[in-house]
Amino acid sequence: MQTSAMMKTYPAEINLDRDLLARTVDALVECSQACTACADACLSEDMVAELRKCIRTNLDCADICTTTARVLSRHTGYDANITRAQLQACAQACRSCEDECNLHADMHEHCKVCAESCRRCEQACTELLAAVG
Amino acid sequence: MQTSAMMKTYPAEINLDRDLLARTVDALVECSQACTACADACLSEDMVAELRKCIRTNLDCADICTTTARVLSRHTGYDANITRAQLQACAQACRSCEDECNLHADMHEHCKVCAESCRRCEQACTELLAAVG
Amino acid sequence: MQTSAMMKTYPAEINLDRDLLARTVDALVECSQACTACADACLSEDMVAELRKCIRTNLDCADICTTTARVLSRHTGYDANITRAQLQACAQACRSCEDECNLHADMHEHCKVCAESCRRCEQACTELLAAVG
Amino acid sequence: MQTSAMMKTYPAEINLDRDLLARTVDALVECSQACTACADACLSEDMVAELRKCIRTNLDCADICTTTARVLSRHTGYDANITRAQLQACAQACRSCEDECNLHADMHEHCKVCAESCRRCEQACTELLAAVG
Repeated sequence: MQTSAMMKTYPAEINLDRDLLARTVDALVECSQACTACADACLSEDMVAELRKCIRTNLDCADICTTTARVLSRHTGYDANITRAQLQACAQACRSCEDECNLHADMHEHCKVCAESCRRCEQACTELLAAVG
Repeated sequence: MQTSAMMKTYPAEINLDRDLLARTVDALVECSQACTACADACLSEDMVAELRKCIRTNLDCADICTTTARVLSRHTGYDANITRAQLQACAQACRSCEDECNLHADMHEHCKVCAESCRRCEQACTELLAAVG
Repeated sequence: MQTSAMMKTYPAEINLDRDLLARTVDALVECSQACTACADACLSEDMVAELRKCIRTNLDCADICTTTARVLSRHTGYDANITRAQLQACAQACRSCEDECNLHADMHEHCKVCAESCRRCEQACTELLAAVG
Repeated sequence: MQTSAMMKTYPAEINLDRDLLARTVDALVECSQACTACADACLSEDMVAELRKCIRTNLDCADICTTTARVLSRHTGYDANITRAQLQACAQACRSCEDECNLHADMHEHCKVCAESCRRCEQACTELLAAVG
Protein backbone atom coordinates (compact mmCIF):
# COMPACT_ATOMS: atom_id res chain seq x y z
CA MET A 1 0.00 0.00 0.00
CA GLN A 2 1.18 3.52 -0.85
CA THR A 3 -1.10 5.15 1.72
CA SER A 4 1.69 6.63 3.81
CA ALA A 5 3.64 7.76 0.72
CA MET A 6 0.55 9.51 -0.65
CA MET A 7 -0.20 11.08 2.74
CA LYS A 8 3.29 12.63 2.75
CA THR A 9 2.74 14.27 -0.65
CA TYR A 10 -0.40 16.17 0.34
CA PRO A 11 0.50 19.80 -0.42
CA ALA A 12 -1.29 21.56 2.46
CA GLU A 13 -1.76 21.11 6.17
CA ILE A 14 -3.54 18.04 7.55
CA ASN A 15 -5.41 18.50 10.83
CA LEU A 16 -4.56 15.01 12.06
CA ASP A 17 -1.33 13.05 12.47
CA ARG A 18 -0.34 11.67 9.05
CA ASP A 19 1.04 8.37 10.39
CA LEU A 20 -2.06 7.69 12.47
CA LEU A 21 -4.28 8.55 9.49
CA ALA A 22 -2.31 6.28 7.15
CA ARG A 23 -2.41 3.35 9.58
CA THR A 24 -6.17 3.77 9.96
CA VAL A 25 -6.75 3.92 6.20
CA ASP A 26 -4.67 0.75 5.78
CA ALA A 27 -6.69 -1.03 8.48
CA LEU A 28 -9.95 0.08 6.82
CA VAL A 29 -8.91 -1.03 3.36
CA GLU A 30 -7.76 -4.42 4.66
CA CYS A 31 -10.96 -4.88 6.67
CA SER A 32 -13.16 -3.99 3.71
CA GLN A 33 -11.41 -6.57 1.52
CA ALA A 34 -11.55 -9.24 4.24
CA CYS A 35 -15.29 -8.65 4.76
CA THR A 36 -16.04 -8.87 1.03
CA ALA A 37 -14.09 -12.13 0.83
CA CYS A 38 -15.66 -13.51 4.03
CA ALA A 39 -19.19 -12.82 2.77
CA ASP A 40 -18.38 -14.77 -0.38
CA ALA A 41 -16.68 -17.62 1.48
CA CYS A 42 -19.69 -17.92 3.82
CA LEU A 43 -21.94 -18.01 0.76
CA SER A 44 -20.03 -21.06 -0.47
CA GLU A 45 -20.22 -23.03 2.80
CA ASP A 46 -22.58 -26.04 3.08
CA MET A 47 -24.15 -24.40 6.12
CA VAL A 48 -24.88 -21.13 4.29
CA ALA A 49 -28.37 -20.99 5.84
CA GLU A 50 -26.78 -20.58 9.28
CA LEU A 51 -24.42 -17.85 8.03
CA ARG A 52 -27.05 -15.40 6.75
CA LYS A 53 -26.46 -12.81 9.46
CA CYS A 54 -22.69 -13.15 9.07
CA ILE A 55 -22.93 -12.53 5.30
CA ARG A 56 -25.14 -9.50 5.79
CA THR A 57 -22.94 -7.98 8.47
CA ASN A 58 -19.88 -8.60 6.29
CA LEU A 59 -21.52 -6.74 3.40
CA ASP A 60 -22.42 -3.76 5.61
CA CYS A 61 -18.95 -3.65 7.15
CA ALA A 62 -17.26 -3.81 3.72
CA ASP A 63 -19.32 -0.86 2.43
CA ILE A 64 -18.84 1.20 5.59
CA CYS A 65 -15.06 0.59 5.73
CA THR A 66 -14.63 1.51 2.05
CA THR A 67 -16.51 4.77 2.55
CA THR A 68 -14.63 5.60 5.77
CA ALA A 69 -11.26 4.98 4.07
CA ARG A 70 -12.27 7.47 1.37
CA VAL A 71 -13.36 10.12 3.86
CA LEU A 72 -10.03 9.76 5.70
CA SER A 73 -8.07 9.94 2.43
CA ARG A 74 -9.40 13.46 1.82
CA HIS A 75 -7.95 16.43 3.72
CA THR A 76 -9.13 19.42 1.69
CA GLY A 77 -11.98 21.30 3.40
CA TYR A 78 -11.77 19.08 6.48
CA ASP A 79 -15.02 18.81 8.50
CA ALA A 80 -14.45 17.15 11.88
CA ASN A 81 -18.19 16.50 12.26
CA ILE A 82 -18.34 14.22 9.22
CA THR A 83 -15.08 12.44 10.08
CA ARG A 84 -16.17 11.82 13.67
CA ALA A 85 -19.65 10.52 12.80
CA GLN A 86 -18.38 8.24 10.05
CA LEU A 87 -15.61 6.86 12.30
CA GLN A 88 -18.21 6.11 15.00
CA ALA A 89 -20.40 4.26 12.47
CA CYS A 90 -17.37 2.33 11.26
CA ALA A 91 -16.19 1.34 14.74
CA GLN A 92 -19.73 0.04 15.41
CA ALA A 93 -19.84 -1.94 12.15
CA CYS A 94 -16.43 -3.49 12.92
CA ARG A 95 -17.52 -4.45 16.45
CA SER A 96 -20.72 -6.07 15.15
CA CYS A 97 -18.88 -7.89 12.38
CA GLU A 98 -16.10 -9.11 14.68
CA ASP A 99 -18.71 -10.46 17.12
CA GLU A 100 -20.61 -12.21 14.36
CA CYS A 101 -17.50 -13.72 12.72
CA ASN A 102 -16.19 -14.89 16.09
CA LEU A 103 -19.31 -17.06 16.46
CA HIS A 104 -18.02 -19.11 13.51
CA ALA A 105 -14.25 -18.67 13.91
CA ASP A 106 -13.73 -22.20 15.23
CA MET A 107 -15.40 -23.75 12.21
CA HIS A 108 -14.45 -21.33 9.44
CA GLU A 109 -10.91 -20.01 9.04
CA HIS A 110 -12.20 -17.10 6.89
CA CYS A 111 -14.36 -15.92 9.79
CA LYS A 112 -11.31 -16.11 12.08
CA VAL A 113 -9.09 -14.04 9.78
CA CYS A 114 -11.93 -11.59 9.13
CA ALA A 115 -12.69 -11.15 12.86
CA GLU A 116 -9.04 -10.24 13.44
CA SER A 117 -9.15 -7.63 10.65
CA CYS A 118 -12.35 -6.20 12.13
CA ARG A 119 -10.79 -6.01 15.60
CA ARG A 120 -7.69 -4.19 14.32
CA CYS A 121 -9.86 -1.82 12.30
CA GLU A 122 -12.15 -1.06 15.24
CA GLN A 123 -9.09 -0.27 17.37
CA ALA A 124 -7.63 2.00 14.69
CA CYS A 125 -10.96 3.88 14.33
CA THR A 126 -11.26 4.27 18.11
CA GLU A 127 -7.69 5.59 18.38
CA LEU A 128 -8.31 8.07 15.58
CA LEU A 129 -11.61 9.15 17.15
CA ALA A 130 -9.71 10.15 20.28
CA ALA A 131 -7.42 12.32 18.14
CA VAL A 132 -10.36 13.91 16.27
CA GLY A 133 -11.87 14.85 19.66
CA MET B 1 -37.11 3.62 -8.91
CA GLN B 2 -38.33 0.14 -7.92
CA THR B 3 -37.31 0.57 -4.27
CA SER B 4 -40.83 0.25 -2.90
CA ALA B 5 -41.67 -2.68 -5.21
CA MET B 6 -38.51 -4.51 -4.11
CA MET B 7 -39.21 -3.74 -0.45
CA LYS B 8 -42.64 -5.41 -0.79
CA THR B 9 -41.11 -8.63 -2.16
CA TYR B 10 -38.78 -9.22 0.80
CA PRO B 11 -39.78 -12.70 1.99
CA ALA B 12 -39.38 -12.25 5.76
CA GLU B 13 -40.23 -9.69 8.41
CA ILE B 14 -38.71 -6.21 8.29
CA ASN B 15 -38.19 -4.47 11.64
CA LEU B 16 -39.01 -1.04 10.24
CA ASP B 17 -41.90 0.40 8.25
CA ARG B 18 -41.43 -0.57 4.59
CA ASP B 19 -42.80 2.71 3.18
CA LEU B 20 -40.59 4.83 5.42
CA LEU B 21 -37.57 2.68 4.53
CA ALA B 22 -38.28 2.93 0.80
CA ARG B 23 -38.71 6.71 0.95
CA THR B 24 -35.42 7.04 2.81
CA VAL B 25 -33.55 4.82 0.35
CA ASP B 26 -34.94 6.90 -2.54
CA ALA B 27 -33.83 10.13 -0.86
CA LEU B 28 -30.35 8.67 -0.27
CA VAL B 29 -29.93 7.45 -3.82
CA GLU B 30 -31.06 10.81 -5.21
CA CYS B 31 -28.77 12.71 -2.87
CA SER B 32 -25.78 10.55 -3.73
CA GLN B 33 -26.29 11.16 -7.45
CA ALA B 34 -26.82 14.90 -6.95
CA CYS B 35 -23.63 15.18 -4.89
CA THR B 36 -21.55 13.29 -7.48
CA ALA B 37 -22.91 15.59 -10.20
CA CYS B 38 -22.44 18.73 -8.08
CA ALA B 39 -18.80 17.87 -7.34
CA ASP B 40 -18.19 17.54 -11.07
CA ALA B 41 -20.09 20.72 -11.96
CA CYS B 42 -18.11 22.67 -9.32
CA LEU B 43 -14.91 21.24 -10.80
CA SER B 44 -15.88 22.79 -14.14
CA GLU B 45 -16.64 26.27 -12.82
CA ASP B 46 -14.22 29.16 -13.49
CA MET B 47 -14.05 29.79 -9.75
CA VAL B 48 -13.11 26.17 -8.95
CA ALA B 49 -10.45 27.36 -6.48
CA GLU B 50 -13.21 28.81 -4.28
CA LEU B 51 -15.26 25.60 -4.47
CA ARG B 52 -12.65 23.19 -3.07
CA LYS B 53 -14.48 22.60 0.19
CA CYS B 54 -17.80 22.19 -1.64
CA ILE B 55 -16.29 19.55 -3.96
CA ARG B 56 -14.77 17.64 -1.06
CA THR B 57 -17.97 17.69 0.99
CA ASN B 58 -19.94 16.56 -2.07
CA LEU B 59 -17.60 13.60 -2.53
CA ASP B 60 -17.93 12.56 1.12
CA CYS B 61 -21.70 12.96 1.06
CA ALA B 62 -22.01 10.90 -2.15
CA ASP B 63 -19.99 8.02 -0.66
CA ILE B 64 -21.82 8.11 2.68
CA CYS B 65 -25.29 8.24 1.07
CA THR B 66 -24.49 5.32 -1.25
CA THR B 67 -23.31 3.19 1.67
CA THR B 68 -26.30 4.16 3.83
CA ALA B 69 -28.73 3.28 1.02
CA ARG B 70 -27.13 -0.17 0.83
CA VAL B 71 -27.33 -0.75 4.58
CA LEU B 72 -31.03 0.21 4.52
CA SER B 73 -31.70 -2.06 1.52
CA ARG B 74 -30.67 -5.11 3.57
CA HIS B 75 -33.04 -6.58 6.16
CA THR B 76 -31.58 -10.03 6.81
CA GLY B 77 -29.79 -10.24 10.17
CA TYR B 78 -30.82 -6.67 11.08
CA ASP B 79 -28.50 -4.91 13.56
CA ALA B 80 -30.05 -1.68 14.90
CA ASN B 81 -26.64 -0.48 16.15
CA ILE B 82 -25.14 -0.38 12.66
CA THR B 83 -28.26 1.17 11.11
CA ARG B 84 -28.46 3.88 13.77
CA ALA B 85 -24.78 4.83 13.64
CA GLN B 86 -24.69 4.93 9.83
CA LEU B 87 -27.89 7.02 9.70
CA GLN B 88 -26.36 9.49 12.18
CA ALA B 89 -23.22 9.79 10.04
CA CYS B 90 -25.35 10.28 6.96
CA ALA B 91 -27.59 12.95 8.53
CA GLN B 92 -24.39 14.81 9.52
CA ALA B 93 -22.89 14.55 6.04
CA CYS B 94 -26.13 15.84 4.49
CA ARG B 95 -26.26 18.79 6.92
CA SER B 96 -22.65 19.73 6.19
CA CYS B 97 -23.14 19.38 2.44
CA GLU B 98 -26.39 21.36 2.44
CA ASP B 99 -24.69 24.17 4.39
CA GLU B 100 -21.72 24.22 2.02
CA CYS B 101 -23.84 24.12 -1.15
CA ASN B 102 -26.12 26.86 0.18
CA LEU B 103 -23.11 29.21 0.32
CA HIS B 104 -22.99 29.02 -3.50
CA ALA B 105 -26.68 28.43 -4.31
CA ASP B 106 -27.20 31.98 -5.55
CA MET B 107 -24.38 31.70 -8.07
CA HIS B 108 -24.57 28.04 -9.04
CA GLU B 109 -27.86 26.30 -9.86
CA HIS B 110 -26.23 22.87 -9.29
CA CYS B 111 -25.44 23.85 -5.71
CA LYS B 112 -29.05 24.96 -5.23
CA VAL B 113 -30.53 21.68 -6.53
CA CYS B 114 -27.96 19.67 -4.57
CA ALA B 115 -28.64 21.55 -1.32
CA GLU B 116 -32.34 20.71 -1.68
CA SER B 117 -31.55 17.01 -2.18
CA CYS B 118 -29.29 17.10 0.89
CA ARG B 119 -32.01 18.75 2.97
CA ARG B 120 -34.64 16.18 1.97
CA CYS B 121 -32.19 13.36 2.63
CA GLU B 122 -31.21 14.69 6.05
CA GLN B 123 -34.91 14.92 6.96
CA ALA B 124 -35.57 11.36 5.80
CA CYS B 125 -32.58 10.05 7.79
CA THR B 126 -33.71 11.93 10.90
CA GLU B 127 -37.28 10.60 10.59
CA LEU B 128 -36.00 7.05 10.18
CA LEU B 129 -33.62 7.49 13.13
CA ALA B 130 -36.63 8.26 15.33
CA ALA B 131 -38.23 5.00 14.19
CA VAL B 132 -35.03 2.97 14.78
CA GLY B 133 -34.95 4.34 18.35
CA MET C 1 -34.51 11.64 -8.94
CA GLN C 2 -32.93 14.99 -9.81
CA THR C 3 -30.58 13.48 -12.40
CA SER C 4 -32.02 15.41 -15.33
CA ALA C 5 -32.21 18.66 -13.32
CA MET C 6 -28.56 18.30 -12.30
CA MET C 7 -27.52 17.44 -15.85
CA LYS C 8 -29.09 20.71 -17.07
CA THR C 9 -27.05 22.78 -14.59
CA TYR C 10 -23.64 21.52 -15.74
CA PRO C 11 -21.81 24.73 -16.68
CA ALA C 12 -19.80 23.49 -19.68
CA GLU C 13 -20.36 21.40 -22.78
CA ILE C 14 -21.28 17.72 -22.47
CA ASN C 15 -20.14 15.44 -25.29
CA LEU C 16 -23.25 13.28 -25.13
CA ASP C 17 -26.98 13.99 -25.22
CA ARG C 18 -28.07 15.15 -21.76
CA ASP C 19 -31.47 13.41 -21.84
CA LEU C 20 -29.97 10.10 -22.93
CA LEU C 21 -27.29 10.40 -20.24
CA ALA C 22 -29.84 11.20 -17.53
CA ARG C 23 -32.07 8.29 -18.53
CA THR C 24 -29.10 5.93 -18.42
CA VAL C 25 -27.96 7.17 -15.00
CA ASP C 26 -31.51 6.69 -13.68
CA ALA C 27 -31.64 3.13 -15.04
CA LEU C 28 -28.23 2.38 -13.47
CA VAL C 29 -29.15 3.76 -10.08
CA GLU C 30 -32.44 1.84 -10.06
CA CYS C 31 -30.72 -1.38 -11.16
CA SER C 32 -28.03 -1.05 -8.50
CA GLN C 33 -30.64 -0.65 -5.76
CA ALA C 34 -32.74 -3.54 -7.09
CA CYS C 35 -29.69 -5.84 -7.20
CA THR C 36 -28.66 -4.96 -3.62
CA ALA C 37 -32.21 -5.66 -2.45
CA CYS C 38 -32.49 -8.88 -4.50
CA ALA C 39 -29.22 -10.24 -3.06
CA ASP C 40 -30.58 -9.66 0.42
CA ALA C 41 -34.02 -11.12 -0.36
CA CYS C 42 -32.38 -14.23 -1.87
CA LEU C 43 -30.27 -14.53 1.30
CA SER C 44 -33.48 -14.71 3.32
CA GLU C 45 -35.17 -17.41 1.22
CA ASP C 46 -35.46 -20.98 2.57
CA MET C 47 -33.72 -22.21 -0.57
CA VAL C 48 -30.74 -19.88 -0.14
CA ALA C 49 -28.33 -22.71 -1.02
CA GLU C 50 -29.79 -22.79 -4.55
CA LEU C 51 -29.52 -19.01 -4.91
CA ARG C 52 -25.77 -18.66 -4.32
CA LYS C 53 -24.96 -17.73 -7.90
CA CYS C 54 -27.89 -15.30 -8.03
CA ILE C 55 -26.68 -13.55 -4.86
CA ARG C 56 -23.15 -13.27 -6.17
CA THR C 57 -24.22 -11.94 -9.56
CA ASN C 58 -26.52 -9.44 -7.85
CA LEU C 59 -23.61 -8.16 -5.73
CA ASP C 60 -21.37 -7.75 -8.77
CA CYS C 61 -24.12 -6.04 -10.77
CA ALA C 62 -24.89 -3.64 -7.90
CA ASP C 63 -21.22 -2.59 -7.61
CA ILE C 64 -20.74 -2.25 -11.37
CA CYS C 65 -23.96 -0.22 -11.86
CA THR C 66 -23.06 2.16 -9.00
CA THR C 67 -19.62 2.79 -10.47
CA THR C 68 -20.98 3.23 -14.00
CA ALA C 69 -23.60 5.75 -12.77
CA ARG C 70 -20.78 7.77 -11.20
CA VAL C 71 -18.64 7.72 -14.34
CA LEU C 72 -21.64 8.94 -16.39
CA SER C 73 -22.42 11.66 -13.83
CA ARG C 74 -19.03 13.29 -14.50
CA HIS C 75 -18.46 15.35 -17.65
CA THR C 76 -15.30 17.31 -16.85
CA GLY C 77 -12.25 15.92 -18.67
CA TYR C 78 -14.35 13.38 -20.59
CA ASP C 79 -12.48 10.28 -21.75
CA ALA C 80 -14.55 8.21 -24.22
CA ASN C 81 -12.28 5.18 -23.69
CA ILE C 82 -13.16 4.87 -20.01
CA THR C 83 -16.87 5.54 -20.59
CA ARG C 84 -17.07 2.96 -23.39
CA ALA C 85 -15.21 0.22 -21.51
CA GLN C 86 -17.19 0.72 -18.32
CA LEU C 87 -20.50 0.74 -20.22
CA GLN C 88 -19.52 -2.54 -21.91
CA ALA C 89 -18.72 -4.12 -18.55
CA CYS C 90 -22.01 -2.86 -17.16
CA ALA C 91 -24.10 -4.15 -20.08
CA GLN C 92 -22.46 -7.54 -19.57
CA ALA C 93 -23.15 -7.56 -15.82
CA CYS C 94 -26.81 -6.62 -16.44
CA ARG C 95 -27.20 -9.39 -19.05
CA SER C 96 -25.70 -11.99 -16.69
CA CYS C 97 -27.79 -10.80 -13.77
CA GLU C 98 -31.01 -10.70 -15.79
CA ASP C 99 -30.37 -14.27 -17.01
CA GLU C 100 -29.66 -15.50 -13.49
CA CYS C 101 -32.68 -13.74 -11.93
CA ASN C 102 -34.96 -15.00 -14.69
CA LEU C 103 -34.16 -18.57 -13.64
CA HIS C 104 -35.97 -17.84 -10.36
CA ALA C 105 -38.52 -15.25 -11.50
CA ASP C 106 -41.43 -17.69 -11.34
CA MET C 107 -40.73 -18.55 -7.73
CA HIS C 108 -39.39 -15.25 -6.38
CA GLU C 109 -41.06 -11.93 -7.13
CA HIS C 110 -37.84 -10.04 -6.17
CA CYS C 111 -35.97 -11.89 -8.91
CA LYS C 112 -38.70 -10.94 -11.40
CA VAL C 113 -38.60 -7.23 -10.52
CA CYS C 114 -34.80 -7.28 -10.48
CA ALA C 115 -34.56 -9.02 -13.87
CA GLU C 116 -36.74 -6.27 -15.36
CA SER C 117 -34.50 -3.55 -13.91
CA CYS C 118 -31.44 -5.35 -15.31
CA ARG C 119 -33.04 -5.61 -18.75
CA ARG C 120 -33.93 -1.89 -18.85
CA CYS C 121 -30.44 -1.00 -17.64
CA GLU C 122 -28.72 -3.21 -20.22
CA GLN C 123 -30.82 -1.57 -22.95
CA ALA C 124 -29.96 1.93 -21.71
CA CYS C 125 -26.23 1.08 -21.61
CA THR C 126 -26.37 -0.40 -25.11
CA GLU C 127 -28.17 2.67 -26.47
CA LEU C 128 -25.63 4.99 -24.86
CA LEU C 129 -22.74 2.86 -26.16
CA ALA C 130 -24.01 3.47 -29.70
CA ALA C 131 -23.90 7.21 -29.03
CA VAL C 132 -20.39 7.07 -27.53
CA GLY C 133 -19.22 5.28 -30.68
CA MET D 1 -3.34 -6.82 3.67
CA GLN D 2 -4.89 -10.22 4.40
CA THR D 3 -5.94 -10.78 0.78
CA SER D 4 -3.78 -13.84 0.25
CA ALA D 5 -4.71 -15.31 3.65
CA MET D 6 -8.42 -14.85 2.89
CA MET D 7 -7.98 -16.32 -0.60
CA LYS D 8 -6.51 -19.49 0.95
CA THR D 9 -9.52 -19.98 3.22
CA TYR D 10 -12.11 -20.02 0.43
CA PRO D 11 -13.85 -23.37 0.93
CA ALA D 12 -14.47 -24.35 -2.70
CA GLU D 13 -12.61 -24.37 -5.99
CA ILE D 14 -11.43 -21.09 -7.54
CA ASN D 15 -11.20 -21.02 -11.34
CA LEU D 16 -8.11 -18.80 -11.35
CA ASP D 17 -4.71 -18.98 -9.66
CA ARG D 18 -5.10 -17.80 -6.06
CA ASP D 19 -1.72 -16.04 -5.90
CA LEU D 20 -2.33 -14.16 -9.14
CA LEU D 21 -5.80 -13.18 -7.96
CA ALA D 22 -4.53 -11.96 -4.58
CA ARG D 23 -1.74 -9.91 -6.18
CA THR D 24 -4.25 -8.30 -8.53
CA VAL D 25 -6.69 -7.47 -5.72
CA ASP D 26 -3.83 -5.90 -3.74
CA ALA D 27 -2.80 -3.79 -6.75
CA LEU D 28 -6.42 -2.68 -7.27
CA VAL D 29 -6.95 -1.74 -3.65
CA GLU D 30 -3.69 0.22 -3.56
CA CYS D 31 -4.50 1.99 -6.84
CA SER D 32 -7.98 2.93 -5.66
CA GLN D 33 -6.60 4.48 -2.48
CA ALA D 34 -3.84 6.31 -4.36
CA CYS D 35 -6.34 7.75 -6.85
CA THR D 36 -8.69 8.96 -4.10
CA ALA D 37 -5.74 10.64 -2.36
CA CYS D 38 -4.37 12.09 -5.62
CA ALA D 39 -7.74 13.63 -6.52
CA ASP D 40 -7.80 15.33 -3.14
CA ALA D 41 -4.17 16.46 -3.33
CA CYS D 42 -4.77 17.92 -6.81
CA LEU D 43 -7.82 19.73 -5.41
CA SER D 44 -5.56 21.44 -2.87
CA GLU D 45 -2.92 22.62 -5.37
CA ASP D 46 -2.71 26.31 -6.33
CA MET D 47 -3.03 25.30 -9.97
CA VAL D 48 -6.22 23.30 -9.38
CA ALA D 49 -7.81 24.80 -12.51
CA GLU D 50 -5.18 23.01 -14.62
CA LEU D 51 -5.73 19.70 -12.81
CA ARG D 52 -9.46 19.31 -13.53
CA LYS D 53 -9.04 16.40 -15.92
CA CYS D 54 -6.57 14.72 -13.56
CA ILE D 55 -9.04 14.97 -10.66
CA ARG D 56 -11.88 13.57 -12.73
CA THR D 57 -9.82 10.67 -14.07
CA ASN D 58 -8.61 9.91 -10.54
CA LEU D 59 -12.21 9.75 -9.31
CA ASP D 60 -13.24 7.39 -12.12
CA CYS D 61 -10.19 5.19 -11.61
CA ALA D 62 -10.79 4.98 -7.85
CA ASP D 63 -14.41 3.87 -8.33
CA ILE D 64 -13.55 1.38 -11.08
CA CYS D 65 -10.64 -0.16 -9.12
CA THR D 66 -12.77 -0.55 -5.97
CA THR D 67 -15.50 -2.32 -7.93
CA THR D 68 -13.03 -4.55 -9.77
CA ALA D 69 -11.35 -5.56 -6.49
CA ARG D 70 -14.76 -6.62 -5.18
CA VAL D 71 -15.62 -8.64 -8.27
CA LEU D 72 -12.25 -10.46 -8.01
CA SER D 73 -12.75 -11.10 -4.27
CA ARG D 74 -15.84 -13.19 -5.06
CA HIS D 75 -15.49 -16.75 -6.39
CA THR D 76 -18.94 -18.24 -5.81
CA GLY D 77 -20.93 -18.56 -9.05
CA TYR D 78 -17.99 -17.34 -11.16
CA ASP D 79 -18.94 -15.71 -14.47
CA ALA D 80 -15.91 -15.22 -16.73
CA ASN D 81 -17.83 -12.74 -18.90
CA ILE D 82 -18.30 -10.26 -16.04
CA THR D 83 -14.74 -10.69 -14.76
CA ARG D 84 -13.24 -10.18 -18.22
CA ALA D 85 -15.30 -7.11 -19.10
CA GLN D 86 -14.68 -5.44 -15.75
CA LEU D 87 -10.94 -6.16 -15.96
CA GLN D 88 -10.84 -4.60 -19.44
CA ALA D 89 -12.61 -1.48 -18.16
CA CYS D 90 -10.20 -1.31 -15.23
CA ALA D 91 -7.08 -1.71 -17.35
CA GLN D 92 -8.38 1.16 -19.53
CA ALA D 93 -9.08 3.40 -16.53
CA CYS D 94 -5.59 2.73 -15.13
CA ARG D 95 -3.96 3.51 -18.50
CA SER D 96 -5.88 6.78 -18.81
CA CYS D 97 -5.14 7.76 -15.22
CA GLU D 98 -1.44 6.89 -15.49
CA ASP D 99 -1.17 8.99 -18.66
CA GLU D 100 -2.94 11.93 -17.04
CA CYS D 101 -0.93 11.77 -13.80
CA ASN D 102 2.33 11.47 -15.73
CA LEU D 103 1.64 14.88 -17.31
CA HIS D 104 2.04 16.39 -13.82
CA ALA D 105 4.50 13.95 -12.24
CA ASP D 106 7.43 16.35 -12.50
CA MET D 107 5.58 19.05 -10.58
CA HIS D 108 3.47 17.00 -8.18
CA GLU D 109 4.89 14.07 -6.22
CA HIS D 110 1.35 12.72 -5.59
CA CYS D 111 0.81 12.42 -9.33
CA LYS D 112 4.12 10.53 -9.63
CA VAL D 113 3.28 8.03 -6.88
CA CYS D 114 -0.26 7.64 -8.26
CA ALA D 115 0.96 7.06 -11.82
CA GLU D 116 3.18 4.24 -10.56
CA SER D 117 0.25 2.61 -8.73
CA CYS D 118 -1.86 2.90 -11.89
CA ARG D 119 0.89 1.32 -14.00
CA ARG D 120 1.30 -1.64 -11.63
CA CYS D 121 -2.47 -2.07 -11.47
CA GLU D 122 -2.86 -1.97 -15.25
CA GLN D 123 -0.14 -4.63 -15.56
CA ALA D 124 -1.81 -6.85 -12.95
CA CYS D 125 -5.18 -6.54 -14.70
CA THR D 126 -3.62 -7.35 -18.07
CA GLU D 127 -1.83 -10.39 -16.67
CA LEU D 128 -5.02 -11.65 -15.07
CA LEU D 129 -6.97 -11.02 -18.29
CA ALA D 130 -4.61 -13.40 -20.09
CA ALA D 131 -5.39 -16.05 -17.47
CA VAL D 132 -9.16 -15.48 -17.72
CA GLY D 133 -8.92 -16.00 -21.48
